[in-house]
Amino acid sequence: MQDRRRNIKLIIEYDGTYYAGWQRQKNALSVQEVLEAALFRITDQRIALTVAGRTDSGVHAKGQVANFYTESTIPADRFCYALNSLMPEDVRVLNSCEVPREFHARFSATGKRYRYSIVSHPQGIALGRQYYHHVPFPIDIEAMLKASKHFEGTHDFYGFMSTGSRIKNTVRNLDKINLDWQPPFLCIDLSGGGFLYNMVRIIVGTLLEVGAGRISPDDLPLIISSRDRSMAGPTAPAHGLCLMEVFY
Amino acid sequence: MQDRRRNIKLIIEYDGTYYAGWQRQKNALSVQEVLEAALFRITDQRIALTVAGRTDSGVHAKGQVANFYTESTIPADRFCYALNSLMPEDVRVLNSCEVPREFHARFSATGKRYRYSIVSHPQGIALGRQYYHHVPFPIDIEAMLKASKHFEGTHDFYGFMSTGSRIKNTVRNLDKINLDWQPPFLCIDLSGGGFLYNMVRIIVGTLLEVGAGRISPDDLPLIISSRDRSMAGPTAPAHGLCLMEVFY
Repeated sequence: MQDRRRNIKLIIEYDGTYYAGWQRQKNALSVQEVLEAALFRITDQRIALTVAGRTDSGVHAKGQVANFYTESTIPADRFCYALNSLMPEDVRVLNSCEVPREFHARFSATGKRYRYSIVSHPQGIALGRQYYHHVPFPIDIEAMLKASKHFEGTHDFYGFMSTGSRIKNTVRNLDKINLDWQPPFLCIDLSGGGFLYNMVRIIVGTLLEVGAGRISPDDLPLIISSRDRSMAGPTAPAHGLCLMEVFY
Repeated sequence: MQDRRRNIKLIIEYDGTYYAGWQRQKNALSVQEVLEAALFRITDQRIALTVAGRTDSGVHAKGQVANFYTESTIPADRFCYALNSLMPEDVRVLNSCEVPREFHARFSATGKRYRYSIVSHPQGIALGRQYYHHVPFPIDIEAMLKASKHFEGTHDFYGFMSTGSRIKNTVRNLDKINLDWQPPFLCIDLSGGGFLYNMVRIIVGTLLEVGAGRISPDDLPLIISSRDRSMAGPTAPAHGLCLMEVFY
Protein backbone atom coordinates (compact mmCIF):
# COMPACT_ATOMS: atom_id res chain seq x y z
CA MET A 1 0.00 0.00 0.00
CA GLN A 2 1.42 3.34 -1.04
CA ASP A 3 1.96 6.07 1.54
CA ARG A 4 0.18 9.10 0.13
CA ARG A 5 1.30 11.46 2.87
CA ARG A 6 3.15 14.57 1.77
CA ASN A 7 6.23 15.88 3.52
CA ILE A 8 5.80 19.55 4.55
CA LYS A 9 8.67 21.83 5.55
CA LEU A 10 8.12 24.86 7.77
CA ILE A 11 10.40 27.85 8.36
CA ILE A 12 9.63 29.23 11.80
CA GLU A 13 10.47 32.44 13.63
CA TYR A 14 9.85 32.70 17.36
CA ASP A 15 10.49 34.91 20.34
CA GLY A 16 11.65 32.43 22.96
CA THR A 17 11.10 34.78 25.92
CA TYR A 18 8.01 33.04 27.25
CA TYR A 19 8.79 29.46 26.16
CA ALA A 20 10.62 26.63 27.86
CA GLY A 21 12.49 26.03 24.61
CA TRP A 22 11.53 24.14 21.45
CA GLN A 23 10.93 20.70 22.86
CA ARG A 24 7.64 19.54 24.32
CA GLN A 25 7.75 19.34 28.13
CA LYS A 26 5.46 18.08 30.82
CA ASN A 27 5.19 21.15 33.03
CA ALA A 28 6.00 24.10 30.78
CA LEU A 29 4.91 25.54 27.46
CA SER A 30 7.16 24.84 24.47
CA VAL A 31 7.19 26.17 20.92
CA GLN A 32 6.68 22.62 19.65
CA GLU A 33 3.49 22.25 21.70
CA VAL A 34 2.06 25.52 20.33
CA LEU A 35 2.77 24.46 16.74
CA GLU A 36 1.51 20.90 17.14
CA ALA A 37 -1.69 22.14 18.82
CA ALA A 38 -2.34 24.42 15.82
CA LEU A 39 -1.53 21.58 13.39
CA PHE A 40 -4.02 19.36 15.20
CA ARG A 41 -6.77 21.94 14.77
CA ILE A 42 -6.02 22.20 11.04
CA THR A 43 -5.44 18.55 10.14
CA ASP A 44 -7.21 16.64 12.94
CA GLN A 45 -3.99 14.61 13.11
CA ARG A 46 -1.65 14.21 16.09
CA ILE A 47 1.49 15.37 14.31
CA ALA A 48 4.99 15.08 15.81
CA LEU A 49 7.24 17.70 14.26
CA THR A 50 10.83 16.91 13.34
CA VAL A 51 13.02 19.93 14.03
CA ALA A 52 16.47 21.08 12.93
CA GLY A 53 17.65 22.52 16.27
CA ARG A 54 16.10 21.99 19.68
CA THR A 55 16.64 25.46 21.11
CA ASP A 56 16.86 25.91 24.88
CA SER A 57 14.51 27.81 27.13
CA GLY A 58 14.57 31.53 26.27
CA VAL A 59 16.50 31.12 23.00
CA HIS A 60 15.00 32.72 19.89
CA ALA A 61 14.81 31.60 16.27
CA LYS A 62 14.57 33.51 13.02
CA GLY A 63 14.98 30.53 10.69
CA GLN A 64 14.13 27.36 12.59
CA VAL A 65 13.16 24.48 10.25
CA ALA A 66 10.75 21.63 10.95
CA ASN A 67 8.98 19.03 8.82
CA PHE A 68 6.01 16.67 9.15
CA TYR A 69 4.04 14.14 7.11
CA THR A 70 0.36 14.67 6.49
CA GLU A 71 -2.61 13.29 4.56
CA SER A 72 -4.26 16.70 4.71
CA THR A 73 -5.25 18.15 1.33
CA ILE A 74 -4.47 21.74 2.34
CA PRO A 75 -2.11 23.22 -0.28
CA ALA A 76 1.42 23.17 1.14
CA ASP A 77 1.93 26.93 0.84
CA ARG A 78 -1.28 27.63 2.79
CA PHE A 79 -0.15 25.93 5.99
CA CYS A 80 1.67 29.06 7.14
CA TYR A 81 -1.49 31.18 6.87
CA ALA A 82 -3.63 28.59 8.65
CA LEU A 83 -1.09 28.04 11.42
CA ASN A 84 -0.42 31.74 12.05
CA SER A 85 -4.13 32.42 12.49
CA LEU A 86 -4.18 29.88 15.34
CA MET A 87 -0.99 30.75 17.20
CA PRO A 88 0.18 33.49 19.58
CA GLU A 89 2.00 36.28 17.77
CA ASP A 90 5.41 35.35 19.21
CA VAL A 91 5.47 32.27 16.96
CA ARG A 92 5.23 32.80 13.18
CA VAL A 93 5.54 30.30 10.36
CA LEU A 94 7.26 32.36 7.66
CA ASN A 95 6.96 29.78 4.90
CA SER A 96 5.55 26.32 4.22
CA CYS A 97 6.23 24.12 1.20
CA GLU A 98 6.22 20.49 0.11
CA VAL A 99 9.61 18.76 0.09
CA PRO A 100 10.78 15.31 -1.09
CA ARG A 101 9.81 12.37 1.14
CA GLU A 102 13.39 11.84 2.29
CA PHE A 103 13.85 15.41 3.59
CA HIS A 104 14.52 15.35 7.35
CA ALA A 105 14.81 18.72 9.13
CA ARG A 106 17.64 17.49 11.37
CA PHE A 107 19.48 14.74 9.46
CA SER A 108 19.37 16.52 6.09
CA ALA A 109 20.89 19.69 7.56
CA THR A 110 24.51 20.40 6.62
CA GLY A 111 24.98 23.26 9.06
CA LYS A 112 23.50 26.08 11.07
CA ARG A 113 24.10 29.74 11.77
CA TYR A 114 23.54 31.22 15.21
CA ARG A 115 23.68 34.86 16.22
CA TYR A 116 24.53 36.09 19.69
CA SER A 117 23.59 39.73 20.35
CA ILE A 118 25.22 41.90 22.99
CA VAL A 119 24.79 45.50 24.06
CA SER A 120 27.77 47.07 25.82
CA HIS A 121 26.50 50.20 27.53
CA PRO A 122 26.53 51.32 31.18
CA GLN A 123 22.73 51.73 31.24
CA GLY A 124 21.61 49.05 28.79
CA ILE A 125 18.57 49.42 26.55
CA ALA A 126 14.80 49.34 26.87
CA LEU A 127 13.93 48.68 23.21
CA GLY A 128 14.98 45.18 22.17
CA ARG A 129 16.20 44.26 25.68
CA GLN A 130 14.58 40.80 25.13
CA TYR A 131 17.11 40.07 22.37
CA TYR A 132 20.38 41.52 23.66
CA HIS A 133 22.61 40.37 26.50
CA HIS A 134 23.50 43.52 28.40
CA VAL A 135 27.07 43.95 29.63
CA PRO A 136 27.58 47.21 31.55
CA PHE A 137 31.36 47.30 30.88
CA PRO A 138 33.26 48.48 27.77
CA ILE A 139 34.51 45.59 25.61
CA ASP A 140 37.82 45.27 23.77
CA ILE A 141 36.60 44.37 20.31
CA GLU A 142 40.09 43.91 18.82
CA ALA A 143 40.95 41.34 21.49
CA MET A 144 37.63 39.53 20.96
CA LEU A 145 38.19 39.45 17.21
CA LYS A 146 41.67 38.01 17.67
CA ALA A 147 40.36 35.43 20.14
CA SER A 148 37.48 34.43 17.88
CA LYS A 149 39.88 33.31 15.13
CA HIS A 150 41.17 30.51 17.40
CA PHE A 151 37.72 28.88 17.45
CA GLU A 152 37.45 28.64 13.68
CA GLY A 153 38.22 25.26 12.13
CA THR A 154 37.96 21.71 13.48
CA HIS A 155 38.51 21.30 17.21
CA ASP A 156 37.56 19.04 20.06
CA PHE A 157 35.09 21.39 21.79
CA TYR A 158 34.70 19.13 24.85
CA GLY A 159 35.53 22.04 27.17
CA PHE A 160 32.80 24.14 25.52
CA MET A 161 29.94 21.79 26.28
CA SER A 162 27.66 21.88 29.31
CA THR A 163 28.00 18.87 31.55
CA GLY A 164 25.17 16.36 31.42
CA SER A 165 25.46 15.79 27.70
CA ARG A 166 26.16 12.16 26.82
CA ILE A 167 27.67 12.94 23.41
CA LYS A 168 30.79 10.81 22.70
CA ASN A 169 32.36 12.60 19.76
CA THR A 170 32.93 16.22 20.72
CA VAL A 171 34.92 17.20 17.62
CA ARG A 172 33.10 19.87 15.64
CA ASN A 173 33.87 22.14 12.73
CA LEU A 174 33.21 25.84 13.23
CA ASP A 175 33.33 27.34 9.75
CA LYS A 176 33.19 31.00 10.64
CA ILE A 177 32.81 33.45 13.50
CA ASN A 178 31.94 36.97 12.46
CA LEU A 179 31.81 39.99 14.77
CA ASP A 180 29.69 42.95 13.74
CA TRP A 181 30.32 45.93 16.04
CA GLN A 182 27.91 48.83 15.68
CA PRO A 183 28.45 50.53 19.05
CA PRO A 184 26.93 49.84 21.51
CA PHE A 185 25.69 46.69 19.72
CA LEU A 186 27.81 43.62 18.99
CA CYS A 187 26.43 40.73 16.94
CA ILE A 188 28.48 37.53 16.86
CA ASP A 189 27.53 35.13 14.05
CA LEU A 190 28.72 31.53 14.26
CA SER A 191 28.32 29.08 11.36
CA GLY A 192 29.24 25.44 11.50
CA GLY A 193 28.33 21.88 10.74
CA GLY A 194 27.18 21.08 14.24
CA PHE A 195 27.17 22.46 17.76
CA LEU A 196 27.47 20.79 21.15
CA TYR A 197 25.05 21.51 23.99
CA ASN A 198 25.47 25.20 25.00
CA MET A 199 28.58 25.46 22.79
CA VAL A 200 27.65 28.83 21.28
CA ARG A 201 26.80 30.35 24.65
CA ILE A 202 30.07 29.10 26.23
CA ILE A 203 32.14 30.40 23.30
CA VAL A 204 30.44 33.79 23.65
CA GLY A 205 30.89 33.73 27.43
CA THR A 206 34.61 33.09 26.84
CA LEU A 207 34.86 35.87 24.24
CA LEU A 208 33.26 38.26 26.74
CA GLU A 209 35.94 37.32 29.29
CA VAL A 210 38.45 38.32 26.62
CA GLY A 211 36.50 41.52 25.93
CA ALA A 212 36.59 42.37 29.64
CA GLY A 213 40.35 41.75 29.78
CA ARG A 214 40.17 38.71 32.09
CA ILE A 215 41.39 36.23 29.44
CA SER A 216 44.10 37.00 26.88
CA PRO A 217 43.37 36.12 23.23
CA ASP A 218 46.70 34.25 23.20
CA ASP A 219 45.43 31.84 25.87
CA LEU A 220 42.66 30.52 23.66
CA PRO A 221 44.62 27.64 22.04
CA LEU A 222 45.52 26.33 25.50
CA ILE A 223 41.98 26.74 26.81
CA ILE A 224 40.55 24.87 23.82
CA SER A 225 43.09 22.04 23.91
CA SER A 226 42.71 21.64 27.70
CA ARG A 227 39.21 20.20 27.17
CA ASP A 228 38.48 21.67 30.60
CA ARG A 229 35.10 23.36 31.02
CA SER A 230 36.41 25.36 33.99
CA MET A 231 39.09 27.03 31.83
CA ALA A 232 36.45 28.52 29.50
CA GLY A 233 34.17 31.44 30.38
CA PRO A 234 30.66 31.24 31.82
CA THR A 235 27.65 30.25 29.71
CA ALA A 236 26.24 33.48 28.25
CA PRO A 237 22.50 33.95 28.96
CA ALA A 238 19.89 32.38 26.68
CA HIS A 239 18.03 35.50 25.57
CA GLY A 240 20.99 36.81 23.51
CA LEU A 241 20.97 33.71 21.30
CA CYS A 242 19.04 33.25 18.07
CA LEU A 243 19.06 30.38 15.54
CA MET A 244 19.31 32.38 12.32
CA GLU A 245 19.30 29.74 9.58
CA VAL A 246 19.72 26.08 8.82
CA PHE A 247 21.72 25.01 5.78
CA TYR A 248 20.72 22.05 3.56
CA MET B 1 17.32 84.15 48.81
CA GLN B 2 19.18 82.33 46.13
CA ASP B 3 17.69 79.20 44.54
CA ARG B 4 20.42 76.58 44.88
CA ARG B 5 18.58 73.91 42.99
CA ARG B 6 20.36 72.42 40.00
CA ASN B 7 18.65 71.72 36.68
CA ILE B 8 19.13 68.08 35.61
CA LYS B 9 18.50 66.80 32.11
CA LEU B 10 17.67 63.14 31.43
CA ILE B 11 17.78 61.23 28.15
CA ILE B 12 15.28 58.40 28.39
CA GLU B 13 14.61 55.26 26.33
CA TYR B 14 11.41 53.31 26.91
CA ASP B 15 9.38 50.48 25.51
CA GLY B 16 5.85 51.90 25.53
CA THR B 17 4.11 48.53 25.16
CA TYR B 18 2.85 48.33 28.72
CA TYR B 19 2.41 52.05 29.44
CA ALA B 20 -0.51 54.42 28.98
CA GLY B 21 1.90 56.91 27.40
CA TRP B 22 4.26 59.43 28.97
CA GLN B 23 1.84 61.52 30.96
CA ARG B 24 0.72 60.71 34.48
CA GLN B 25 -2.85 59.38 34.55
CA LYS B 26 -5.34 58.51 37.24
CA ASN B 27 -6.19 54.96 36.28
CA ALA B 28 -3.24 53.69 34.28
CA LEU B 29 0.52 53.41 34.61
CA SER B 30 2.58 56.02 32.75
CA VAL B 31 6.30 56.37 32.10
CA GLN B 32 6.27 59.69 33.97
CA GLU B 33 4.87 58.00 37.09
CA VAL B 34 7.57 55.31 37.03
CA LEU B 35 10.32 57.91 36.73
CA GLU B 36 8.91 60.28 39.33
CA ALA B 37 8.43 57.41 41.79
CA ALA B 38 12.11 56.47 41.38
CA LEU B 39 13.15 60.14 41.73
CA PHE B 40 11.17 60.36 44.96
CA ARG B 41 13.01 57.37 46.40
CA ILE B 42 16.36 58.95 45.52
CA THR B 43 15.75 62.58 46.45
CA ASP B 44 12.84 62.41 48.90
CA GLN B 45 11.34 65.22 46.78
CA ARG B 46 8.05 65.16 44.90
CA ILE B 47 9.51 66.05 41.51
CA ALA B 48 7.38 66.95 38.49
CA LEU B 49 9.31 66.20 35.32
CA THR B 50 9.18 68.53 32.34
CA VAL B 51 9.23 66.52 29.13
CA ALA B 52 10.01 67.25 25.48
CA GLY B 53 7.28 65.11 23.90
CA ARG B 54 4.25 63.62 25.63
CA THR B 55 4.10 60.32 23.77
CA ASP B 56 0.78 58.48 23.48
CA SER B 57 -0.14 55.12 24.91
CA GLY B 58 1.96 52.37 23.31
CA VAL B 59 4.43 54.75 21.64
CA HIS B 60 8.15 54.12 22.28
CA ALA B 61 11.07 56.47 22.80
CA LYS B 62 14.78 56.10 22.17
CA GLY B 63 15.75 59.68 22.93
CA GLN B 64 13.05 61.29 25.07
CA VAL B 65 14.31 64.28 27.04
CA ALA B 66 13.10 65.52 30.43
CA ASN B 67 14.43 67.92 33.05
CA PHE B 68 13.83 68.70 36.71
CA TYR B 69 15.15 70.94 39.49
CA THR B 70 16.60 69.42 42.62
CA GLU B 71 18.42 70.27 45.84
CA SER B 72 19.83 66.77 45.97
CA THR B 73 23.62 66.56 46.19
CA ILE B 74 23.84 63.44 44.04
CA PRO B 75 26.34 64.10 41.21
CA ALA B 76 24.36 64.84 38.04
CA ASP B 77 25.91 62.00 36.06
CA ARG B 78 24.98 59.45 38.75
CA PHE B 79 21.21 59.99 38.51
CA CYS B 80 20.96 57.56 35.60
CA TYR B 81 22.58 54.75 37.62
CA ALA B 82 20.42 55.41 40.66
CA LEU B 83 17.21 55.68 38.64
CA ASN B 84 17.84 52.56 36.55
CA SER B 85 18.39 50.47 39.66
CA LEU B 86 14.88 51.44 40.81
CA MET B 87 12.88 51.10 37.59
CA PRO B 88 11.49 48.24 35.48
CA GLU B 89 13.81 47.29 32.62
CA ASP B 90 11.52 48.72 29.94
CA VAL B 91 12.45 52.25 31.07
CA ARG B 92 16.14 53.25 30.98
CA VAL B 93 17.75 56.61 31.64
CA LEU B 94 20.64 56.61 29.17
CA ASN B 95 22.27 59.77 30.41
CA SER B 96 21.91 62.44 33.08
CA CYS B 97 23.74 65.75 33.29
CA GLU B 98 23.43 69.25 34.73
CA VAL B 99 22.18 71.94 32.35
CA PRO B 100 21.78 75.73 32.64
CA ARG B 101 18.86 76.93 34.77
CA GLU B 102 16.97 78.21 31.75
CA PHE B 103 16.98 74.86 29.93
CA HIS B 104 13.40 73.61 29.45
CA ALA B 105 12.94 70.17 27.86
CA ARG B 106 9.92 71.31 25.84
CA PHE B 107 10.32 75.05 25.22
CA SER B 108 14.06 74.90 24.50
CA ALA B 109 13.59 72.18 21.86
CA THR B 110 14.02 73.30 18.27
CA GLY B 111 12.73 70.08 16.72
CA LYS B 112 12.21 66.34 16.98
CA ARG B 113 12.78 63.23 14.95
CA TYR B 114 10.27 60.39 14.97
CA ARG B 115 10.63 56.96 13.37
CA TYR B 116 7.75 54.84 12.21
CA SER B 117 8.64 51.17 11.60
CA ILE B 118 6.72 48.87 9.29
CA VAL B 119 7.12 45.25 8.25
CA SER B 120 5.52 44.30 4.94
CA HIS B 121 5.33 40.52 4.86
CA PRO B 122 2.40 38.11 4.47
CA GLN B 123 3.21 36.35 7.78
CA GLY B 124 4.69 39.19 9.83
CA ILE B 125 7.44 38.70 12.38
CA ALA B 126 7.82 37.28 15.87
CA LEU B 127 11.09 39.01 16.84
CA GLY B 128 10.57 42.74 17.28
CA ARG B 129 6.81 42.53 16.64
CA GLN B 130 6.37 45.06 19.51
CA TYR B 131 8.16 47.72 17.44
CA TYR B 132 6.87 47.17 13.88
CA HIS B 133 3.44 47.78 12.40
CA HIS B 134 2.67 44.67 10.34
CA VAL B 135 1.04 45.11 6.95
CA PRO B 136 0.37 41.80 5.19
CA PHE B 137 0.31 43.35 1.71
CA PRO B 138 3.20 44.32 -0.60
CA ILE B 139 3.90 48.06 -0.63
CA ASP B 140 4.83 50.29 -3.56
CA ILE B 141 7.92 52.01 -2.18
CA GLU B 142 8.43 54.25 -5.21
CA ALA B 143 4.91 55.63 -4.88
CA MET B 144 5.37 56.16 -1.13
CA LEU B 145 8.67 57.95 -1.73
CA LYS B 146 7.04 60.23 -4.30
CA ALA B 147 4.11 60.94 -1.99
CA SER B 148 6.37 61.64 1.00
CA LYS B 149 8.01 64.57 -0.81
CA HIS B 150 4.69 66.45 -0.79
CA PHE B 151 4.71 66.55 3.01
CA GLU B 152 8.10 68.20 3.27
CA GLY B 153 8.16 71.92 3.89
CA THR B 154 5.71 74.26 5.61
CA HIS B 155 2.02 73.30 5.38
CA ASP B 156 -1.21 73.69 7.25
CA PHE B 157 -1.48 70.13 8.59
CA TYR B 158 -5.01 70.63 9.96
CA GLY B 159 -6.23 67.53 8.07
CA PHE B 160 -3.45 65.47 9.66
CA MET B 161 -4.46 66.09 13.25
CA SER B 162 -6.76 63.97 15.38
CA THR B 163 -9.96 65.72 16.36
CA GLY B 164 -10.20 66.83 19.96
CA SER B 165 -7.06 68.93 19.82
CA ARG B 166 -7.70 72.60 20.66
CA ILE B 167 -4.60 73.88 18.87
CA LYS B 168 -5.32 77.07 16.86
CA ASN B 169 -2.28 77.35 14.62
CA THR B 170 -1.96 74.11 12.64
CA VAL B 171 0.85 75.27 10.34
CA ARG B 172 3.97 73.16 10.87
CA ASN B 173 7.30 72.75 9.15
CA LEU B 174 8.30 69.19 8.26
CA ASP B 175 12.00 69.39 7.44
CA LYS B 176 12.56 65.92 6.11
CA ILE B 177 10.87 62.56 5.54
CA ASN B 178 13.28 59.72 4.87
CA LEU B 179 12.27 56.20 3.82
CA ASP B 180 14.70 53.38 4.52
CA TRP B 181 13.54 50.16 2.80
CA GLN B 182 15.38 47.00 3.82
CA PRO B 183 12.81 44.41 2.73
CA PRO B 184 10.62 43.44 4.48
CA PHE B 185 11.34 46.37 6.83
CA LEU B 186 10.49 50.00 6.12
CA CYS B 187 11.59 52.76 8.49
CA ILE B 188 10.11 56.20 7.93
CA ASP B 189 11.98 59.02 9.69
CA LEU B 190 10.28 62.38 10.08
CA SER B 191 12.11 65.46 11.35
CA GLY B 192 10.49 68.79 12.03
CA GLY B 193 10.08 71.76 14.29
CA GLY B 194 6.79 70.60 15.73
CA PHE B 195 4.09 68.01 15.27
CA LEU B 196 0.32 68.13 15.79
CA TYR B 197 -1.55 65.50 17.78
CA ASN B 198 -1.21 62.15 15.92
CA MET B 199 0.31 63.95 12.92
CA VAL B 200 3.09 61.41 12.34
CA ARG B 201 0.71 58.45 12.59
CA ILE B 202 -1.79 60.03 10.17
CA ILE B 203 0.96 60.89 7.65
CA VAL B 204 2.19 57.29 7.85
CA GLY B 205 -1.37 55.95 7.56
CA THR B 206 -1.76 58.07 4.42
CA LEU B 207 1.57 56.91 2.99
CA LEU B 208 0.46 53.30 3.54
CA GLU B 209 -2.72 54.01 1.54
CA VAL B 210 -0.40 55.18 -1.23
CA GLY B 211 1.76 52.07 -0.80
CA ALA B 212 -1.33 49.88 -1.10
CA GLY B 213 -2.39 51.71 -4.28
CA ARG B 214 -5.57 53.23 -2.82
CA ILE B 215 -4.29 56.83 -2.98
CA SER B 216 -2.17 58.22 -5.84
CA PRO B 217 0.96 60.19 -4.91
CA ASP B 218 -0.31 62.97 -7.19
CA ASP B 219 -3.38 63.44 -4.98
CA LEU B 220 -1.31 64.44 -1.98
CA PRO B 221 -1.24 68.23 -2.64
CA LEU B 222 -5.05 68.23 -2.82
CA ILE B 223 -5.42 66.07 0.28
CA ILE B 224 -3.10 68.35 2.26
CA SER B 225 -4.70 71.60 1.09
CA SER B 226 -8.23 70.25 1.70
CA ARG B 227 -7.58 70.42 5.48
CA ASP B 228 -10.06 67.51 5.64
CA ARG B 229 -9.18 64.70 8.03
CA SER B 230 -11.44 62.30 6.11
CA MET B 231 -9.37 62.74 2.93
CA ALA B 232 -6.20 61.48 4.67
CA GLY B 233 -5.51 57.86 5.58
CA PRO B 234 -6.25 56.18 8.91
CA THR B 235 -4.10 56.77 12.00
CA ALA B 236 -1.34 54.14 11.93
CA PRO B 237 -1.11 52.12 15.18
CA ALA B 238 0.89 53.43 18.14
CA HIS B 239 3.39 50.58 18.54
CA GLY B 240 5.18 51.37 15.25
CA LEU B 241 6.09 54.88 16.46
CA CYS B 242 9.23 55.89 18.31
CA LEU B 243 10.50 59.32 19.41
CA MET B 244 14.12 59.06 18.28
CA GLU B 245 15.67 62.38 19.28
CA VAL B 246 14.96 65.90 20.37
CA PHE B 247 16.98 68.77 18.91
CA TYR B 248 18.13 71.78 20.97
